[in-house]
Amino acid sequence: MAIENEKSKRTELSELGEFDLIDRLTEGLTPLNHSTIKGVGDDAAVMQYDNHSLILLANDILIEGVHFDLTYTPLKHLGYKAGVVNFSDIYAMNGAPKQLVIGLGVSNRFSVEALDEFYEGLRLACHHYGVDLVGGDISSSKTGMFISISVVGEVSKDEVVYRNGAQLDNLICVSGDLGAAYMGLLLLEREKRVYLANPNMQPDLEGNDYVLERQLKPEARKDIIRLLHEACIQPTAMIDISDGLASEILHICKQSNKGCVIYEDKIPIDPATLLLCDEFKIIPAIAALHGGEDYELLFTIPLSEYEKIEKVENISLIGHITDSSEGCQLITNDGKQIPLQAQGWNHLRK
Amino acid sequence: MAIENEKSKRTELSELGEFDLIDRLTEGLTPLNHSTIKGVGDDAAVMQYDNHSLILLANDILIEGVHFDLTYTPLKHLGYKAGVVNFSDIYAMNGAPKQLVIGLGVSNRFSVEALDEFYEGLRLACHHYGVDLVGGDISSSKTGMFISISVVGEVSKDEVVYRNGAQLDNLICVSGDLGAAYMGLLLLEREKRVYLANPNMQPDLEGNDYVLERQLKPEARKDIIRLLHEACIQPTAMIDISDGLASEILHICKQSNKGCVIYEDKIPIDPATLLLCDEFKIIPAIAALHGGEDYELLFTIPLSEYEKIEKVENISLIGHITDSSEGCQLITNDGKQIPLQAQGWNHLRK
Repeated sequence: MAIENEKSKRTELSELGEFDLIDRLTEGLTPLNHSTIKGVGDDAAVMQYDNHSLILLANDILIEGVHFDLTYTPLKHLGYKAGVVNFSDIYAMNGAPKQLVIGLGVSNRFSVEALDEFYEGLRLACHHYGVDLVGGDISSSKTGMFISISVVGEVSKDEVVYRNGAQLDNLICVSGDLGAAYMGLLLLEREKRVYLANPNMQPDLEGNDYVLERQLKPEARKDIIRLLHEACIQPTAMIDISDGLASEILHICKQSNKGCVIYEDKIPIDPATLLLCDEFKIIPAIAALHGGEDYELLFTIPLSEYEKIEKVENISLIGHITDSSEGCQLITNDGKQIPLQAQGWNHLRK
Repeated sequence: MAIENEKSKRTELSELGEFDLIDRLTEGLTPLNHSTIKGVGDDAAVMQYDNHSLILLANDILIEGVHFDLTYTPLKHLGYKAGVVNFSDIYAMNGAPKQLVIGLGVSNRFSVEALDEFYEGLRLACHHYGVDLVGGDISSSKTGMFISISVVGEVSKDEVVYRNGAQLDNLICVSGDLGAAYMGLLLLEREKRVYLANPNMQPDLEGNDYVLERQLKPEARKDIIRLLHEACIQPTAMIDISDGLASEILHICKQSNKGCVIYEDKIPIDPATLLLCDEFKIIPAIAALHGGEDYELLFTIPLSEYEKIEKVENISLIGHITDSSEGCQLITNDGKQIPLQAQGWNHLRK
């Protein structure tokens, strides 16, 4: 008997990181079923069971102590967020989420009423986004809380958008604003430290509603998908921003075999985020590029759609697609050119 | 700030148990989408995206220390089992599993090579059952390993089998044999205690290959679905046996609003299981009724199919469906009648 079956060589998970690890573990997979259109490597898997529409399948996990801290996360918000982060993956394929199943591990320190609250939030998210909670599995866990949600969505065959469709000279667009969720996290972590040091201190969260809501109760951009549809704009590539702008644009460029230029001064950042960045001595672009959890949509469109996209609310043009030989570059506010690197939220790195 | 948002009353999870908890948390859910045919309450959710076939969606979680013990579970076997237990849910709807996504939480004590082994087993199961691994999410966890798998399957509209279709006088059938996986678990737990007490002792697992394989590397009954199809037998109700025969037949009877009679002497038990039951001083029927993890199929068929089912290999007739007023009864070997109760594997009970 051995604790773990190990071969002689031991490679630490931290040496690879999440994306390289997934590449390694899923290398050489070839579809066995006609209904499998696209497997690992996009926001959602794509299946075809009839001639008209495609079925999308996405899965995201949230682990206590890694993705959330119950010290400052109300369970109702957590349930809402657990749904939303999965719906966001389906919107990132230009689809609509339809059904959800949840796998939940909870320790006995949770009461039934605590789970009621979590489900209240999850059901609210489902109701808000028109998704049916159709099943799942609940078990005790020996330690923390573990949430795994799979969402099924639908998209018509000629409207599905992958990560790999970006073309030379395409415009790079992003919805909403970036970096706020990360600043919300830093704020909550700071106030937690203050509270732990002196439980009589009240947390100072005044005036920071926006960044807190972005962290604790994010929304998926269903509205942007609708606006793009109404404006007759179909992105050539799309991804949702869960790990930070830099990581996501690198995914699009790598899978499209292209390069890009992003302009720091074009990255949309809310005034509330800027104020907190100032307080925390963080360069706002860093929060936007590497903070993650914004759940905004990052997408590319043909240059010919410029006039149309200008009229769509809540969209910023932040750069353009270049040849792969030019790499992925950030043009800073002072005109310097810096290669973009993924330093996002990679749980498996040290 | 509070560790958990609790209302004044606190109900322990152990007071409810898994099934009552799920009933409570999913009470009053009504479908928002036309594509949602059946939500919570069967082996898989059922969706319809075209006119010909139905899409099935099932989710099962496996948690270290609750569902498996890495002291004696090789990771390759665990990967295989993690796939199989989900495929079993799809077969229990008379469908075929097609795509799989996995959510995985692992601590840093796992090496990349350890995950390679887990995926080797999972990919072997996928290959064996013709399922495509199409995506997932991997994250570090602070403590143990957590596996959540969702499987999409397909079944034609006129062939789907629910739990709620059992009719008066239907025959109750079960595939294969029961109780072996539970005896395998008891054996592994005993040898683990011996090993922990004296690490120089070699585990005594000789001659118990069958029960060990049933516990560590179970199979889903794809073959039974095929045999029933070839024999032109369509079950009226079906479920897979993950929690023990008693719990599963109670699910069928409750959802079909019927009662049942099960005969102890008809329950199929392998000679290897009987030998170990004798050694462990366990009544074999108890292992079969409450042990669980057999992943056999339990189903009901019309009495008129008796001659057909007699010719199908690997099927035992163990009882029949009665009026709900008669309850669910076990006729013991000595002719006593005992009400069946679910004492299966309920992780949330103390």
